[in-house]
Amino acid sequence: MRALITGASGFVGAHLVRHLLECGDDVVATYFPQPPDAYVLGMCGGSPPLATQNNSAFTADAPRVGSLSWEYLDTSELESCAKLISSAAPEVIYHLAGMSFVPEAERDFLGALKSNVVGLDNILRIAHQIQRKIRVVFVSSADVYGQVSRDLLPARETTPTHPVNAYSVSKLMAELVADRWTRLGNLEVVVMRPFNHIGPGQNVRFMAASFARQLALIWKGRDEPRIMVGNLSARKDFTDVRDVVRAYRRAAEKGHGLYVISSVKSLAVQEILDGLINISGIPVKVECDPARMRSIEPTELYGSYAKAESELGWKPEFTLRQTLADIYADALARCD
Amino acid sequence: MRALITGASGFVGAHLVRHLLECGDDVVATYFPQPPDAYVLGMCGGSPPLATQNNSAFTADAPRVGSLSWEYLDTSELESCAKLISSAAPEVIYHLAGMSFVPEAERDFLGALKSNVVGLDNILRIAHQIQRKIRVVFVSSADVYGQVSRDLLPARETTPTHPVNAYSVSKLMAELVADRWTRLGNLEVVVMRPFNHIGPGQNVRFMAASFARQLALIWKGRDEPRIMVGNLSARKDFTDVRDVVRAYRRAAEKGHGLYVISSVKSLAVQEILDGLINISGIPVKVECDPARMRSIEPTELYGSYAKAESELGWKPEFTLRQTLADIYADALARCD
Repeated sequence: MRALITGASGFVGAHLVRHLLECGDDVVATYFPQPPDAYVLGMCGGSPPLATQNNSAFTADAPRVGSLSWEYLDTSELESCAKLISSAAPEVIYHLAGMSFVPEAERDFLGALKSNVVGLDNILRIAHQIQRKIRVVFVSSADVYGQVSRDLLPARETTPTHPVNAYSVSKLMAELVADRWTRLGNLEVVVMRPFNHIGPGQNVRFMAASFARQLALIWKGRDEPRIMVGNLSARKDFTDVRDVVRAYRRAAEKGHGLYVISSVKSLAVQEILDGLINISGIPVKVECDPARMRSIEPTELYGSYAKAESELGWKPEFTLRQTLADIYADALARCD
Repeated sequence: MRALITGASGFVGAHLVRHLLECGDDVVATYFPQPPDAYVLGMCGGSPPLATQNNSAFTADAPRVGSLSWEYLDTSELESCAKLISSAAPEVIYHLAGMSFVPEAERDFLGALKSNVVGLDNILRIAHQIQRKIRVVFVSSADVYGQVSRDLLPARETTPTHPVNAYSVSKLMAELVADRWTRLGNLEVVVMRPFNHIGPGQNVRFMAASFARQLALIWKGRDEPRIMVGNLSARKDFTDVRDVVRAYRRAAEKGHGLYVISSVKSLAVQEILDGLINISGIPVKVECDPARMRSIEPTELYGSYAKAESELGWKPEFTLRQTLADIYADALARCD
């Protein structure tokens, strides 16, 4: 498939580029504002940024069948979207571009709307006008659920949504935009609601990557054997990013409507930390950092991937141990 | 009640100011970007801009009990909202500010989000932080329903919403923002979903006012006896703006949650036109203007005000004939 990926230089984007290339797709990948760094370029099939044991996804000889080109794209500019979609002529657009860091969206709500809502609106406005069949996979977020009462878990595609922060509100707004353009016709939008994803390459603003980096720095003797954490009792549903991007491609092939992408189990943040400490083999002291606590932290949330399994034939495959081992290996390599 | 009205210099705002003053409320009314014109100032209890027969709402001796002051407010600026709410110290905020013209929202979606979503978010963010009880009446729109299948009419508070244009999408997004802040606590937001409202003072970009102005110009001999119209077969639910603003004050007093404000009947645009032509007594030729057609015009939509009647003791009181007579008298006075 000829694919356009917006926001491809981020964590999920880079994994998606790699997966599509392995599947033989021809990919136009867009970045904004900064070009992809050497790490991302390496992940996407160039020189591998790291080659560790038990981390086969990062070996240099990963098959690369499809072609790849990078383009700058500010999705908030309608004309730029029109030009790029016209020249790339994709059969499918994976729309990942957007603001993904929750505190940033809270500080700059208009900026979040510009990135997360207007960007999608522009892509769909153009896709709607083009006189040929085009499919769009829009990556929303399970954060749109907000707090779900225990009796409604696991969250499904039909579970009521009550987002409680600026980021998750903006994502649900984008789903309204997707619904609007789908109703107007000429295109099909498949909406993905992934739960938390983890894996090698994630920004250290996110919890598992932060733990892994702190452990790696301690291992290298560059930090005290002390690890700073947020709320360890919060329970979330974590899926390996490499499983997640497989779901996106399946959705592009044959998805309709909305899909929850999840592991159908909740894991305490404590378990992620314990797993990483165990893999690293480092004795550390764990300390709570109030600055890492979110004001409203849903106590427990997990989702059912039953619809994705039934319609897309997808389920998560990575074990937690493998995921954590890869995250730690990646953190070690990245703090060289 | 001490009230703050945002967007008070618009059509609905001016009628709301007048109504609150008549009820004895002290009002801080905000405008953006232009100060209220003489017409609006007149409506709000100064010199009446017109004194026509059968138009008692506009006589000079309308009781004015409460106090009124005008302030500039750009609701998209958080600091300005904070300062004004602090100095005005309202018990209730009526949030009317926003972009209300559908084609403008389509041309400038980011601008619509800034006006219609970020503005409300700023007001509620501040109201949430203030350490005293405050109520907010947010004026959304029945446009959020989009196309409703006939078996689901009349639309109620629980009817599914599928907005199909940029304006109505932005209004539903603002409702998400209202839901968010209500869940975070410290304030109560009452959301109003009015259907189409008509009445004296409306901008001629809107249909009834446009018909009335065209008729008034013909009556004055300043135009050919020919009237340009859009889709006359579209059926909509029209309520007199003076009934609508009464509902808002009732909602401020004792409302909870969401209210549909409507007449529970649909009227063909043709009937509005026929009523105005009949009142004017002018024989005119009616011509269709493609530029006045919206790309997607819901064929029929009307709502039930049962919840407003039961909880607020509200129902519409103006007859269509009285409303149209007042609109025509207003149009005659305004084209002098």
